Amino acid sequence: MKMSKFAAYVKFKAHPGKGEALAEILLEAAEQCRTVEDCELYIVNISEEDPDTIWVTELWSDQAAHDASLQGEEAAAMIRRAMPLIAGAEPVRLKPLGGKGA
Amino acid sequence: MKMSKFAAYVKFKAHPGKGEALAEILLEAAEQCRTVEDCELYIVNISEEDPDTIWVTELWSDQAAHDASLQGEEAAAMIRRAMPLIAGAEPVRLKPLGGKGA
Repeated sequence: MKMSKFAAYVKFKAHPGKGEALAEILLEAAEQCRTVEDCELYIVNISEEDPDTIWVTELWSDQAAHDASLQGEEAAAMIRRAMPLIAGAEPVRLKPLGGKGA
Repeated sequence: MKMSKFAAYVKFKAHPGKGEALAEILLEAAEQCRTVEDCELYIVNISEEDPDTIWVTELWSDQAAHDASLQGEEAAAMIRRAMPLIAGAEPVRLKPLGGKGA
C-alpha cells in the first residue's frame, strides 16, 4: 500500500445559480491538463442533489506537479474568473492507496 | 456537458483501527475490476486526517455496469468480509461532466 501520488478532491459550492458556469471554467482547466503528463486525472462532477455543488477529482504524479499547475499566467487568469462564482471550497485531504486508474 | 457515465464516490468510516483492513479489501475489489472494461476507475484513498476514513472513487461506463458489479458470489463474499469493519458509509451522489480521465 505505497504510492507517492497526490490526490486533490475539492467540493466547490458556487453562489446560487452559478454552478454550471463554475463547472465550465473547471472543464477548461481540465482541458489544459490533457497535455500535462503529471496530471493523471482531472474530472469535473456536479452534485445530483445540488446543481451549485461541483466536485473536482484530481490525481497527480506528485504534489509538486499539482502545485506547479496553479502557477503561471493562464492558471491565474482562470482563478480570477472562477473566484467570483465560488461561495466556498472544501478540500478532502486524501492519500491514494491504489486501484484501477491510480 | 453531456455524459452518461456513472460515478460512485463513497466515504467509508471503519470501526476504530479497522481502516487499513477495510482498505485492503477494497483494493482487492479494485483488482477484480481491472479486467472489467466497463469499470474505468476504482481508486482507494485513505484520509490524511483519519486512518479509519477510506474514500473510494469509482467511474463506470453506466449505472447498470456498476450495479452488476455488486452481484455474484465473489462480490457477496467480499461484502460479507467488509461489513463487520464498516461503521458507516456516506455516498456522494455525483454526475460526471467530463475532464481528463473521464
